[in-house]
Amino acid sequence: MAEGFGIWRLGDDDALLDVITSANVACGFHGGDPVTMRRVCATAAARGVAVGAQVGYRDLAGFGRRRIDYAFDELRDDVIYQIGALDAFCRVAGKAVRYVKPHGALYNVASVDEAQAAAVVAAVRDYDRSLPVLCSPGSTLAELAVGAGLTVVAEGFADRAYEPDGRLVSRSHPGAVIHDPEAVVQRALRLAREGTVVAVDGTVIPVRVASICLHGDTPGAAELARRIRDAMTAADVPLSPFASA
Amino acid sequence: MAEGFGIWRLGDDDALLDVITSANVACGFHGGDPVTMRRVCATAAARGVAVGAQVGYRDLAGFGRRRIDYAFDELRDDVIYQIGALDAFCRVAGKAVRYVKPHGALYNVASVDEAQAAAVVAAVRDYDRSLPVLCSPGSTLAELAVGAGLTVVAEGFADRAYEPDGRLVSRSHPGAVIHDPEAVVQRALRLAREGTVVAVDGTVIPVRVASICLHGDTPGAAELARRIRDAMTAADVPLSPFASA
Amino acid sequence: MAEGFGIWRLGDDDALLDVITSANVACGFHGGDPVTMRRVCATAAARGVAVGAQVGYRDLAGFGRRRIDYAFDELRDDVIYQIGALDAFCRVAGKAVRYVKPHGALYNVASVDEAQAAAVVAAVRDYDRSLPVLCSPGSTLAELAVGAGLTVVAEGFADRAYEPDGRLVSRSHPGAVIHDPEAVVQRALRLAREGTVVAVDGTVIPVRVASICLHGDTPGAAELARRIRDAMTAADVPLSPFASA
Amino acid sequence: MAEGFGIWRLGDDDALLDVITSANVACGFHGGDPVTMRRVCATAAARGVAVGAQVGYRDLAGFGRRRIDYAFDELRDDVIYQIGALDAFCRVAGKAVRYVKPHGALYNVASVDEAQAAAVVAAVRDYDRSLPVLCSPGSTLAELAVGAGLTVVAEGFADRAYEPDGRLVSRSHPGAVIHDPEAVVQRALRLAREGTVVAVDGTVIPVRVASICLHGDTPGAAELARRIRDAMTAADVPLSPFASA
Repeated sequence: MAEGFGIWRLGDDDALLDVITSANVACGFHGGDPVTMRRVCATAAARGVAVGAQVGYRDLAGFGRRRIDYAFDELRDDVIYQIGALDAFCRVAGKAVRYVKPHGALYNVASVDEAQAAAVVAAVRDYDRSLPVLCSPGSTLAELAVGAGLTVVAEGFADRAYEPDGRLVSRSHPGAVIHDPEAVVQRALRLAREGTVVAVDGTVIPVRVASICLHGDTPGAAELARRIRDAMTAADVPLSPFASA
Repeated sequence: MAEGFGIWRLGDDDALLDVITSANVACGFHGGDPVTMRRVCATAAARGVAVGAQVGYRDLAGFGRRRIDYAFDELRDDVIYQIGALDAFCRVAGKAVRYVKPHGALYNVASVDEAQAAAVVAAVRDYDRSLPVLCSPGSTLAELAVGAGLTVVAEGFADRAYEPDGRLVSRSHPGAVIHDPEAVVQRALRLAREGTVVAVDGTVIPVRVASICLHGDTPGAAELARRIRDAMTAADVPLSPFASA
Repeated sequence: MAEGFGIWRLGDDDALLDVITSANVACGFHGGDPVTMRRVCATAAARGVAVGAQVGYRDLAGFGRRRIDYAFDELRDDVIYQIGALDAFCRVAGKAVRYVKPHGALYNVASVDEAQAAAVVAAVRDYDRSLPVLCSPGSTLAELAVGAGLTVVAEGFADRAYEPDGRLVSRSHPGAVIHDPEAVVQRALRLAREGTVVAVDGTVIPVRVASICLHGDTPGAAELARRIRDAMTAADVPLSPFASA
Repeated sequence: MAEGFGIWRLGDDDALLDVITSANVACGFHGGDPVTMRRVCATAAARGVAVGAQVGYRDLAGFGRRRIDYAFDELRDDVIYQIGALDAFCRVAGKAVRYVKPHGALYNVASVDEAQAAAVVAAVRDYDRSLPVLCSPGSTLAELAVGAGLTVVAEGFADRAYEPDGRLVSRSHPGAVIHDPEAVVQRALRLAREGTVVAVDGTVIPVRVASICLHGDTPGAAELARRIRDAMTAADVPLSPFASA
């Protein structure tokens, strides 16, 4: 969320904040200007939605979706900078950042690359070791975070196709994103209740998650989120925001 | 301090941190990359130097020295963002930001412009109303900060010429910056002991300050700071960093 | 046009290029990424639409709508840089930049401020003195451009309210932008055929223009442009793009 | 050259332009502000130094030294944008860009990566297919450029260590940069007269080049360039700038 920048808008933050329990909020490096960050943090606070720092590469032109070969300390400190900036707006709203999640290419790279995963872990550990890291189960980031004594919250994607080995199908492949709302709702339910996903080859694989990620820039994101929430509620799946430390 | 950016260096932060008591640290908008900000905050913490947030316009190309006509909320939130980012590195160093000071054109504009001064005041009040604002005595920023219940710490410039009315001579005028080290030392002593300055027309004017600003990008800044510190000590002027709240 | 940046879109460039005769194209400083600039230049070339360089302040966060107090040489050279960058994409499309127009706050400032107007004039003169400057009639920019031997093309705004003295009503005032499409069409016709505008106080004032500006980010901009074009054609007002030198 | 940005300086452009024959000039994405670009182009023109576009990644914070996984069209168009921007200042100086050379990580990546090399080649071909590409002999960039019908000018590095296979030793390894001026001078002579280099393992390898690269940000760069030039002249090695097309 908060992924616009200046005059440019992306997604309908306000509508989504009515439905979700936790919001991954952009911190200004891949998107997110301070006015928008503040507004999202204020609205989230008012509606009881937990705010997480969605930290990304310093790359507005690429929206943080292009891998950048950062040096360790540059990435660690860019992440700390972003967490602090977002935390300022949470503080203004009487709250605090509740968790950290990498965005875009950093998410993908830190899932498999030790150096970048370690930089994200070092940033969270340095800033506040009580903050959970939200990431894919089984990822390098998850492993290193656990190894460093951080809390990991595993997330799944209801609108993304999975490889049989549990990785996401790359966005560059057709079928990577699932557009049929009913299919997304059913995948969300399966993730929440069974901890499984039907992979692209039809096999059922385990994906044990505590959080289900929705993309705010999907057309109809708020309506889709509402349907998922309603289905969860109907299925007696309890929903709650990230807890404060 | 911390006014380099990426590969580019400016000033000798490490040498200065041996001499000064409080450091105005750039926050990334006019200068200051996260790695440098972190290093300065860590060194400052180790040496007992208080860190203040030197917040500036979002203008790397102009080093924050060009007036920008911000809307109120944009400026307020850009300032909050910067304070939070720097506070993150203070936190990593076991400390916190101790005060806020505008940089460059924002300093000059907020000294006379109500809207921009009010935005800086709102930012500090929203973020942490116990943080002092470091600014020129008699400035609009000082007045509005006091009016909002904030603490103001008045500062003087030992290496800048003053108009008879107490304003700084604009940098665009010859003689605006005083380069003779001995003159700067004497002006610093006079500021500290008498609360006066000899203005450009030779009149002695009152400039009651609790802080004396040195510019880290002046050639020989650390040596000059050392001479001032020694002169202060010899004259029994007590020196201390900004206190924690 | 081309006023998106990276992932962010603004306006419907493709639809507008079907209707207009000359396109003011962003050059990357207030908006406009290279991929978008190239695409707009290629489409414009294919459709016989002339491309002008819409040069702006270096301020993505403010979309070039905040006055910045540039030094003369900084503004002149920022403008030259932008013209050259856009010209590269015109060249790739087998064309060249045909004219120069300031964007946003630079447009407003250069209309009244001698230093900034002179910097824009110097940039055009240095780069290619055969390029016309598109600006408001009677503006400081128009006067200085003529004085420097440049060609000036005067433009009017069909969707903006005018003060009785011929200036635009500031966007910060209600009524500054005219939203009724039929009113805009009638104002465009009046501008083109009579060279007059009905000012906010009801007086009819002369605004002699050779170009009528439409804003690509207005909702329904392409449809509005189509209506104006049809009305012009029905009224036998000849329409043509900026000529090549 | 021109690798400062705003207030930040890097290297002594003016001294170097007295000695070299061709200048690789930064274009604003990894470094290089418009005022500095203009000044370097003007001085180069006055001294008969040819100007080449040193195009880089859009990464001021990383000085273009971090690999970025650009999409093909984004890289191609970022390169075209930069060439055009620099060409504007050459044009103001009565000249034109004479060649193109990638900077930093783009140089390294395009030496081995087909997609990025192809994007650079496409940019040069689209902009002006008569412009030579300056790159390492045997690199992927050199091969693709030749394949696309572009002229390639091979360059060698007198101050960089070579692997036995002809690649540069990575800057992250000790000994990658040769600091002894006399050694650099001798390596330059050997490159120019014999087309060979002594690799890190002592073997003599062929490196046939028409250009020898010096780094303007090396301390003492101008003095070193002078010594190399003098040694070349004493050895009757003819020196000349890139020719105009």
